[in-house]
Amino acid sequence: MNDILKEELIYQGRICKFTHDTVTFEDGSTGHRDVLHLPGAVAVIAENNEGKLLFVSQYRHAVETELLEIPAGMLEKGENPELAALRELQEETGYKASKIEKLVEFFTSPGVVKEKIYVYMASDLTFVGQHLDADEYINVKTYTAEEVEKMINNNELQDGKSIIAYELWKNRKSL
Amino acid sequence: MNDILKEELIYQGRICKFTHDTVTFEDGSTGHRDVLHLPGAVAVIAENNEGKLLFVSQYRHAVETELLEIPAGMLEKGENPELAALRELQEETGYKASKIEKLVEFFTSPGVVKEKIYVYMASDLTFVGQHLDADEYINVKTYTAEEVEKMINNNELQDGKSIIAYELWKNRKSL
Repeated sequence: MNDILKEELIYQGRICKFTHDTVTFEDGSTGHRDVLHLPGAVAVIAENNEGKLLFVSQYRHAVETELLEIPAGMLEKGENPELAALRELQEETGYKASKIEKLVEFFTSPGVVKEKIYVYMASDLTFVGQHLDADEYINVKTYTAEEVEKMINNNELQDGKSIIAYELWKNRKSL
Repeated sequence: MNDILKEELIYQGRICKFTHDTVTFEDGSTGHRDVLHLPGAVAVIAENNEGKLLFVSQYRHAVETELLEIPAGMLEKGENPELAALRELQEETGYKASKIEKLVEFFTSPGVVKEKIYVYMASDLTFVGQHLDADEYINVKTYTAEEVEKMINNNELQDGKSIIAYELWKNRKSL
């Protein structure tokens, strides 16, 4: 375990914080670690009433490409992850889910980023209307499990949380 | 697609860079996006000659916990990802692999982090000796596929790249 000697705040944004930390290592020596602090996130793999899986496609500035992902979003302060997953699913796709179950929680990039994503599977969907944030531009797409499987195999699906969600959803469904 | 109007450099570290960008959205309005730029990384799920999978356990300052992961590391400038995966496997576990195959490449946290991880599966291992960086403190552990499966199901394994690597390795092996 490392002891933090100093946490130097480099940047405080609306959502994230970046710090340059001084730490002591196991042998007593000291060094530095940079950390991007994110609020945590939720993601949800949802199956509609035709047995298709819901995805969203949007331009992601950080990685400079249009990316296919399952619905996801940042946790709001103090928000319950399951309710956040239901909220994000509804906001991004317009669908309210009656069934939801947790699949996994995981760290996205533990070397530098303090972020955990909580992943859910959802079903029993009812359309109630999409509700996007002012700066969100999202296209909803649906795929069969076979199509998602193929997109993973040929590496067209390049979003980490979406690959994890599909594989663990598949395990639960024993496909 | 967004156009970048301005990239404001907030922090330039030895490995990462953090920027606060001004962008134009699809409707012509402008807004901001924060980006952590990382050099990209490699990870490798390696099977030893007893059929066990190699993991490493280390304290991760960013997420404030000891974490079990497959061997992984940052890409060096201009480095071939496959050679980097072999290098990291050898440095962290001491094993040189004669067989290596790419499983997938994926973005870790595309909302804020510019980072892609290249994931490989490796086998035909020969022990040549561990070679850690000065500030690396790593314990090597081996698990059967059944043990890894169980650690994913009970959410003991909380590292995204390791879950993806195991699931896609399992698909390839048709376990």
